Amino acid sequence: MRERELLQRIADRSADLPESFDRVLVGPGDDCAVLAPDGRRLVLTTDHLVQDRHFDDTLPLELIGRKAVMRSVSDIAAMAAEPAWALATALLPVGYAHADDLFDHMAHHAREFGCPLVGGDIASLPAGSDGPISLTVTVGGYAENPVLRSGARVGDLVYATGELGGSMTNNRHAKATPRVAVALELARLTTIRAMIDLSDGLGIDAARIARASGVRLELDADAIPIHTDASGLSGALGDGEDYELLFTAPSRATIPESIGVARITRIGRVVEGEPATIVRMLDGSTVDASEQGFEHG
Amino acid sequence: MRERELLQRIADRSADLPESFDRVLVGPGDDCAVLAPDGRRLVLTTDHLVQDRHFDDTLPLELIGRKAVMRSVSDIAAMAAEPAWALATALLPVGYAHADDLFDHMAHHAREFGCPLVGGDIASLPAGSDGPISLTVTVGGYAENPVLRSGARVGDLVYATGELGGSMTNNRHAKATPRVAVALELARLTTIRAMIDLSDGLGIDAARIARASGVRLELDADAIPIHTDASGLSGALGDGEDYELLFTAPSRATIPESIGVARITRIGRVVEGEPATIVRMLDGSTVDASEQGFEHG
Repeated sequence: MRERELLQRIADRSADLPESFDRVLVGPGDDCAVLAPDGRRLVLTTDHLVQDRHFDDTLPLELIGRKAVMRSVSDIAAMAAEPAWALATALLPVGYAHADDLFDHMAHHAREFGCPLVGGDIASLPAGSDGPISLTVTVGGYAENPVLRSGARVGDLVYATGELGGSMTNNRHAKATPRVAVALELARLTTIRAMIDLSDGLGIDAARIARASGVRLELDADAIPIHTDASGLSGALGDGEDYELLFTAPSRATIPESIGVARITRIGRVVEGEPATIVRMLDGSTVDASEQGFEHG
Repeated sequence: MRERELLQRIADRSADLPESFDRVLVGPGDDCAVLAPDGRRLVLTTDHLVQDRHFDDTLPLELIGRKAVMRSVSDIAAMAAEPAWALATALLPVGYAHADDLFDHMAHHAREFGCPLVGGDIASLPAGSDGPISLTVTVGGYAENPVLRSGARVGDLVYATGELGGSMTNNRHAKATPRVAVALELARLTTIRAMIDLSDGLGIDAARIARASGVRLELDADAIPIHTDASGLSGALGDGEDYELLFTAPSRATIPESIGVARITRIGRVVEGEPATIVRMLDGSTVDASEQGFEHG
């Protein structure tokens, strides 16, 4: 399929966007998409999904498309914002047979997550190159008061949603549901001081809140919710790709035990000290877990 | 340089964004960037720049970074919108020595064009792969009344800015100044019915307005402004990468002969008929130029 035909099919499939999504005034097909104004703050993120880096050839095409969108939506959730629109790019081998299906999957899941694909771009790899396939998805969302990584204060308690580790099992890393509803409900119910989504691993990601806030996150080994797929605590700390939320809240805040299907577990506290993720083990010893995880560069 | 160090340098270099750009509340470094609300419509575009597709190794690094940003800004100009923010991604070989410089160039030119880089993502090619380098730049802008491709009406006159063709000479394709100021001034002065930026070539791009508007664009061969670098009319119609504007306006509209350094030339008219770019030659014969140009897929 020529690029022009593919772009036309994407435009045709998107023709209902203005009637299906209030904010979308013009979808794919012009120089730019056009979105209605929104009086809240605009939050923006973009992420790569690269073959042999973030997925391998055993991952079904639908889950490749889903994961590309999901990763960026998870960043929107981590701001306690509402996803609103998405743009996707794909770099594909010349004559790649599944381009149309891949965009269809991305478009389907983007709608499902509330951020319809309003535009994008397709490019071909140089002739003779068969990879890597590379997708990028940019998502915009809106929030009155986005929650940053930098708001954690000494005395806050630390919470995680869901269960952590072992996300490679059964391709759970590509099937995760970004915690948008949980984040919006938390922000509505109570005060969230700092938040991040767990993409690289609890150890690394908690240290990011610590560095941004100038504090130390002390986690209790026996409190961390370990997924049954994980190989114990080290898996929960370092496997990554959980797409759960890690957040801090004042100790007086009332945090529900669950929102929807997502359990919420108190796993530690914010203390003074050189920024780091410190895990307090059952025997009282402590371990610096700030490097536990995987930077998906 | 590790990804984490590079991201930290980008965040450090961007620390002044909130004070330098009113709209930017949070720049690079959190899960998302945060932008202040804007009461106008949001216009959005994203574009690839791929090694051996859109540039070759003779193009200096600065112009690679500049072109990646410029192409998207040109799409914003084509909506008669004001660029406001940008997000960039780069897919680079493992250990690529110029990553920091490349982002520095993109950031510099993004600021120059009024759309500071507020976020992005870096990914590495699989080990052992040296290419292609791929950049994507997403730009958001604002306009009260974005100008679409679909607004051309029979009886409108057709105009182009600048001179067309030969853009490969002296790397002009990477040095072009997106016609943002011209577009904003035109929209302020008069009624623009339809507009597109000339990226793929006058023939192809005029046909896009024609198809979107359900009309035919008839251009006068002797009126088309041919750049001195171009090999005559065919170059002006088909070389592409001019990053000038093509627009239609009602015949009663007063269009200035130039805005700033950009000459504005009336080159034809909108007529009834099957959508196409038709060029009327000096001898009165006509040529269908709808396929003249290059689709940069």
